[in-house]
Amino acid sequence: MNVDIGNALASVASPGVSRESLERLDEQVAVAHERIERGMANEEHGYEALNLPERTDPDEIRTAIEPVADVETMITVGIGGSSLGAATITNALESETETIYLDNVDPEWVSRNLERVRFEDAAINVVSRSGTTAETLANFLVVRDAFESAGVDWTERTIVTTGESGPLRDLADRHDLPSLNVPDGVPGRFSALSAVGMVAAAVCGHDLEALVTGAAAEAETLTESLFDCPAYAYGATTYALDGRGAGVNAVMPYAESLETSAEWFAQLWAESLGKDDLGQTPVRALGVTDQHSQLQLYRAGPRDKLVTFVTPRGGGDRPIPDTGVEELAYLGDSTLGTLLEAEFEATEASLAAAGRPNVRVEIDRVDEYELGGLLYGMEAACVLAGELYGVNTFEQPAVEWAKKATRGLLGGGEFAEAEAVAEKTELRIER
Amino acid sequence: MNVDIGNALASVASPGVSRESLERLDEQVAVAHERIERGMANEEHGYEALNLPERTDPDEIRTAIEPVADVETMITVGIGGSSLGAATITNALESETETIYLDNVDPEWVSRNLERVRFEDAAINVVSRSGTTAETLANFLVVRDAFESAGVDWTERTIVTTGESGPLRDLADRHDLPSLNVPDGVPGRFSALSAVGMVAAAVCGHDLEALVTGAAAEAETLTESLFDCPAYAYGATTYALDGRGAGVNAVMPYAESLETSAEWFAQLWAESLGKDDLGQTPVRALGVTDQHSQLQLYRAGPRDKLVTFVTPRGGGDRPIPDTGVEELAYLGDSTLGTLLEAEFEATEASLAAAGRPNVRVEIDRVDEYELGGLLYGMEAACVLAGELYGVNTFEQPAVEWAKKATRGLLGGGEFAEAEAVAEKTELRIER
Repeated sequence: MNVDIGNALASVASPGVSRESLERLDEQVAVAHERIERGMANEEHGYEALNLPERTDPDEIRTAIEPVADVETMITVGIGGSSLGAATITNALESETETIYLDNVDPEWVSRNLERVRFEDAAINVVSRSGTTAETLANFLVVRDAFESAGVDWTERTIVTTGESGPLRDLADRHDLPSLNVPDGVPGRFSALSAVGMVAAAVCGHDLEALVTGAAAEAETLTESLFDCPAYAYGATTYALDGRGAGVNAVMPYAESLETSAEWFAQLWAESLGKDDLGQTPVRALGVTDQHSQLQLYRAGPRDKLVTFVTPRGGGDRPIPDTGVEELAYLGDSTLGTLLEAEFEATEASLAAAGRPNVRVEIDRVDEYELGGLLYGMEAACVLAGELYGVNTFEQPAVEWAKKATRGLLGGGEFAEAEAVAEKTELRIER
Repeated sequence: MNVDIGNALASVASPGVSRESLERLDEQVAVAHERIERGMANEEHGYEALNLPERTDPDEIRTAIEPVADVETMITVGIGGSSLGAATITNALESETETIYLDNVDPEWVSRNLERVRFEDAAINVVSRSGTTAETLANFLVVRDAFESAGVDWTERTIVTTGESGPLRDLADRHDLPSLNVPDGVPGRFSALSAVGMVAAAVCGHDLEALVTGAAAEAETLTESLFDCPAYAYGATTYALDGRGAGVNAVMPYAESLETSAEWFAQLWAESLGKDDLGQTPVRALGVTDQHSQLQLYRAGPRDKLVTFVTPRGGGDRPIPDTGVEELAYLGDSTLGTLLEAEFEATEASLAAAGRPNVRVEIDRVDEYELGGLLYGMEAACVLAGELYGVNTFEQPAVEWAKKATRGLLGGGEFAEAEAVAEKTELRIER
């Protein structure tokens, strides 16, 4: 990926960061880079994520999915980092294979999803490091049962991606299911470029080598100066802007195919940096659609936002047919792609003209290679930002409370958290 | 809808609002309510939106869609308020009719959507008040052309919803197309409960009367005290919390069917209140999925957030099959619905336990009546909040700049805005 931070400079925007401040910040970037390199070299928890381009073995993934390589529907059962990376990749790329991501336990929605599956031509991809994630295991039990009800043997069409031990590992062993490892030292939100993110992509026939080599090429760009490394330029600029008041980071891809990547980014950013009362709030937006929804706020609301545009340069196009109507004549010579590009440039300029900071992240096109680079680049940007904030980028302690409370409420043990639920303060206003 | 603001009180959360502050604020609510009532009575611009339950005529909409009532696919061409209300309704409810919303001009995505349409069994719903919205007209020309290429006469299967004059009105007259009015005085983001939002719902066979009567019942609750009116309780609480530091409002429905309603809310809130450097930033979230993504930030990040839960009480369910695994035994006696409910209660309590403000918006179930009430209630909440902020809730001046720049870039006239695009400040960091 390439990055353009010109519209985040203090000469353009407020909040903005001056060139001099960036140069001072670059000294911290050098220190952080050294820390990151050491973490990678020592295979430390979390930093290991940045070694994935070297560690991930596409052959191993392809071998595991071989029994189900020709299915028409791939049902991924996972939540958070066990789903978003895979969905980002397969939603970005075209495939004959249909993908379903069961990342919620809404019963009507699960039923609606399963209703339309031809089970004899479908497979399950169940993903949970611990093998005990409540939502994932509940859905897996439901899906397994649906296969059985349809008279289809789920043990012949299930791939398990899990940690070294736990109920899912036991299950894989017992039924001799093809299984892959959630890589050690890699938090879920950083695992898109491992088996966690690539099983569904493999079944969809995507080019796993290109994903990995794209990421490896991005890894090559990591260096001690933000002025030489797109990922660090992005991470350092967002950090600097947050410190100057831009607590919100609206990520706005100008491509429908990248919509899920904004969701993936939102998890990466929120779970990694949202701690110790710190961290930017990621907001998922979409160009051009949100020009007619969020742009008013971005241009004229509080000066607390950075807008991150993600723009692929090339792609397919489609002419706009001519019409006899004079007011619309300017569209008739054009294409949807030209319109999309003009809308992007206009929106970017409209924010700059209002002094609102924005950053452009460019990729050449939406394909496996570029996607690998984008995912890796954003992960490296996040790790750098975590160093600058001084937070523990790789933990997510605040989600534990609700997990215990849920378990307690369902009778899965005694937890003080479950009792706290009953103490809710009410102030109800009813119809 | 019912609202519970207990977890937004200063005794629970920081930022929070004390009961005494709410009582003081209630005096402003009474004044604002009087202004709103006067606006409604005088049919003033914007306030007219709150009269829609009386103005909208389901029969007229049903008559207009009669020629296409049995299609298998309804393609709505519109953007922003011309699409989100309709999508919110049809995505919330089940139907045999497939709906497509072309609310973006991404050429590959438009092509992919059209590829799978059987045009002889499809219809077009084109929506633009001015009849000149670039994205909508470009897509309409593309879709029309796709019908023609398939040998299907689009003039027999197009419904037009537009203003009293303009290219779309002319087109409807010329081809004698069934047409409906975008109601006067009602900004797009407030038009879900008019023809703008209800044409697709009518083709999908949804109960338009129930949508309208649900909204009308919510309208009955508007009264001079926030303690007696759920909509005002919500609007006043969000306003008070914003003033106390909660500049972000994360709307988190606990139902997949309500996911689009969070997008709709985001437009309503951002475009209505995001002006004069004011306005909360809406964030679209989803329970339980985002517990594994955003919750860490909501619970442990900056204290700048309100979380709004939207929870339907009832709905379908699905048992979780039992498993032999001891660690998962607690799930085996349960259902997905019970798990969903426990996760919601746990998440709500986990935020309260961390002193993070949150509000619960309840509806009885996801059906037309309740949805009508929810949409109307949120609109009234937004209008009230606008009065309290003292902004012009019903305009969106900041989106004009980019529209002019786009038009200029495409050769549709001379605009200074288009020239500004070329002056972009660059600071590029490349691979």
